[in-house]
Amino acid sequence: MLEALKEQVWRANLDLVKYKLVLFTWGNVSAIDRESGRVVIKPSGVDYAQMQPSDMVVLSLDGDILEGDLNPSSDTPTHLELYRRFPSIGGVAHTHSTYAVAFAQAAQEIPPYGTTHADFAFGPIPCTRDLTYAEIKEAYELNTGRVIAEHFETRGIDPNAVPAVLVHSHGPFTWGKSADAAAKNAAILEEVARMAFLSRMLDAPTASSFIQKKHYERKHGPNAYYGQGNK
Amino acid sequence: MLEALKEQVWRANLDLVKYKLVLFTWGNVSAIDRESGRVVIKPSGVDYAQMQPSDMVVLSLDGDILEGDLNPSSDTPTHLELYRRFPSIGGVAHTHSTYAVAFAQAAQEIPPYGTTHADFAFGPIPCTRDLTYAEIKEAYELNTGRVIAEHFETRGIDPNAVPAVLVHSHGPFTWGKSADAAAKNAAILEEVARMAFLSRMLDAPTASSFIQKKHYERKHGPNAYYGQGNK
Amino acid sequence: MLEALKEQVWRANLDLVKYKLVLFTWGNVSAIDRESGRVVIKPSGVDYAQMQPSDMVVLSLDGDILEGDLNPSSDTPTHLELYRRFPSIGGVAHTHSTYAVAFAQAAQEIPPYGTTHADFAFGPIPCTRDLTYAEIKEAYELNTGRVIAEHFETRGIDPNAVPAVLVHSHGPFTWGKSADAAAKNAAILEEVARMAFLSRMLDAPTASSFIQKKHYERKHGPNAYYGQGNK
Amino acid sequence: MLEALKEQVWRANLDLVKYKLVLFTWGNVSAIDRESGRVVIKPSGVDYAQMQPSDMVVLSLDGDILEGDLNPSSDTPTHLELYRRFPSIGGVAHTHSTYAVAFAQAAQEIPPYGTTHADFAFGPIPCTRDLTYAEIKEAYELNTGRVIAEHFETRGIDPNAVPAVLVHSHGPFTWGKSADAAAKNAAILEEVARMAFLSRMLDAPTASSFIQKKHYERKHGPNAYYGQGNK
Repeated sequence: MLEALKEQVWRANLDLVKYKLVLFTWGNVSAIDRESGRVVIKPSGVDYAQMQPSDMVVLSLDGDILEGDLNPSSDTPTHLELYRRFPSIGGVAHTHSTYAVAFAQAAQEIPPYGTTHADFAFGPIPCTRDLTYAEIKEAYELNTGRVIAEHFETRGIDPNAVPAVLVHSHGPFTWGKSADAAAKNAAILEEVARMAFLSRMLDAPTASSFIQKKHYERKHGPNAYYGQGNK
Repeated sequence: MLEALKEQVWRANLDLVKYKLVLFTWGNVSAIDRESGRVVIKPSGVDYAQMQPSDMVVLSLDGDILEGDLNPSSDTPTHLELYRRFPSIGGVAHTHSTYAVAFAQAAQEIPPYGTTHADFAFGPIPCTRDLTYAEIKEAYELNTGRVIAEHFETRGIDPNAVPAVLVHSHGPFTWGKSADAAAKNAAILEEVARMAFLSRMLDAPTASSFIQKKHYERKHGPNAYYGQGNK
Repeated sequence: MLEALKEQVWRANLDLVKYKLVLFTWGNVSAIDRESGRVVIKPSGVDYAQMQPSDMVVLSLDGDILEGDLNPSSDTPTHLELYRRFPSIGGVAHTHSTYAVAFAQAAQEIPPYGTTHADFAFGPIPCTRDLTYAEIKEAYELNTGRVIAEHFETRGIDPNAVPAVLVHSHGPFTWGKSADAAAKNAAILEEVARMAFLSRMLDAPTASSFIQKKHYERKHGPNAYYGQGNK
Repeated sequence: MLEALKEQVWRANLDLVKYKLVLFTWGNVSAIDRESGRVVIKPSGVDYAQMQPSDMVVLSLDGDILEGDLNPSSDTPTHLELYRRFPSIGGVAHTHSTYAVAFAQAAQEIPPYGTTHADFAFGPIPCTRDLTYAEIKEAYELNTGRVIAEHFETRGIDPNAVPAVLVHSHGPFTWGKSADAAAKNAAILEEVARMAFLSRMLDAPTASSFIQKKHYERKHGPNAYYGQGNK
């Protein structure tokens, strides 16, 4: 079932390797078929070079395994929670990319230092609070998803305008319309984090709100004129 | 029209990828045919791997599209302004290369810390002021070009001696005699910025004015003796 | 003798190159056949590109050369001491990987800043004390092994839970069930060190003990559920 | 004349590219035939990909061009001075490698932070004083060589034990028994500089003098036991 989506998810997982975001098996991408409510995700701990589209695992949004011989990624409950809480997203990626992890480990948001950031997201890339002992002990991965959603909801952050988050002490999750977009956003986030790290070392201020808004809107706003979309 | 120039501009855009200066579609190179006053530039948001010489867009110096099926780079008005204000240049490149962006985001010029810098430019690589709300709101990309030209003109900086600028909160523009030279200068700027970042972390002083002058002139002065040009 | 193990050790040495952990001939991997008590190790100062499985040197645990035409790695006595003192390990790797060396040169442990670290080791990656003049003068490499073992034993650190150490002013040693695992751990350690360096520059706190424990145990504990092992 | 040496010098220049030490044409390697007193060096500003062994220029130790159609490297007088003042060396390399340049621009020696450094050189990698206005104005490249030699001679530093120097505001020169060794030393210096930069950011102390001596001597001393040399 969902053979085309499995192929897309498989390819997006390989993209993480191509974008140099993962070491060994660290990282996973999933996608959802919103019509059937089914999620396709990478199996846990499988070598990227060996992995085939048929190894992808299919689950219901509640986490029941519907197809697949392998264990799904151990981060699956986080992905599922994000699909439940952010109804507009179609794909989710998780990596341990170096600079994004550094900000997550420092428990700091990535400030919007310039237009590269604003082309990607409107406002800082948030960092969640740390999970409590109870949240870690029971349903750790599910609670990771809950803490992300809580962060966005309580602050009124739109997950379409900020397609990435840093989980405290852990690392980044990114999302998008598709598995491919989520993986691409993981690559952009890492470059934005790298620029932010260097900018921080140089004591950079954040960019003005007008230039942030301008860049975000020329690429993603209703009158966007970047690219060929308006032809 | 201008088939040879399209080929050169196309190749110079691919050079940005070869020099590892761009992620995805971030970056653009153009060239001008001074005789006809026509500018050739990369289309907006097109994948470098797919792009062909025939995809290049031809415009008049006033911005009228003369040939091409695709939207030109969204940064086109900046390129055009640079061609109008700096009559000696033949090519312009724009990237979001990491270290140059870090200095731009920090709103800091790149100090001339040594001979690698002086082989490239005479004096600091300037960083422009930030654009005002009004400048961003209307004709943002044109005003970006104006602010660059203003910076050079009011300070008497010769764009031939300093073939690069950092735009505040944004990133670098470089130029040269041709599209190829502009792209090459983008690569040199990034390496100079990287060395400057590290030198700054080590609390480096700027280089003496004599050694800066010596290196700049042995490569670019009237009695230059670097390379094979004087044979 | 031990042809299969020689092949494994040879391949694990080449993995150090593949993981970009060594420049020239800096680095060495060994493995032990616990049944016969024989150790197989890379020859000293031989170019990785030329090296063949048959070049591997076979020694007794006491350091007698049993087979091989070449000198064994100059770090052999350190490897042997680790096999004698840590009876559960099957492979040892030594590199001069950049970020791990930086912490070793700074004589600092690598703090557990996040889950990437906790997926690898439970607690900080320790840094040994520096060797005394007498220890360096006689049996330097043997004493390096002794100082590592002393560090783990006096602090009650389990070498299975912390498969890596930094030797003061020198660099990392890693180990595992096999030569392959030791080399893989060398790659993970370097990435963990790189993340820790960046996190330190951002003034990161260490991760909470619960999240460290959770991540370590979900991958390595008795009820581990990462990967396909529990299928 | 000296066809074998030209081939060696050509190859060592290409090694600079392989070791990722040069951007474009920045860098040059030479070698001397001590018997005839003739020096072979790379031509100035020629693309590495196009360069052939026959493009190498042959000069006398006094700087007279004996063979070659191209201008020799503009840094030739520095190379010649090093051959005149350091009679034991057979090859010289000059690069603008990033981390070594950062220390040169910061006008700081590279402190001996650990064994990787001590395996390469005994003591700090010195940084010269800056050249005076007069020294730069007349015979700049020759005076660069003089200032290097002066630094070593007045401090009693043995160029065989310290095969590298940083020229103030400029960058590194390295040397060795041959062109190949000089290029290899340029690669090692860059890695040592990179480790030193990171160690400095972590506030590292210098390594003890005993461990420096031990590592230097086990590789380069009369009783060296690293590698296969003593077989």
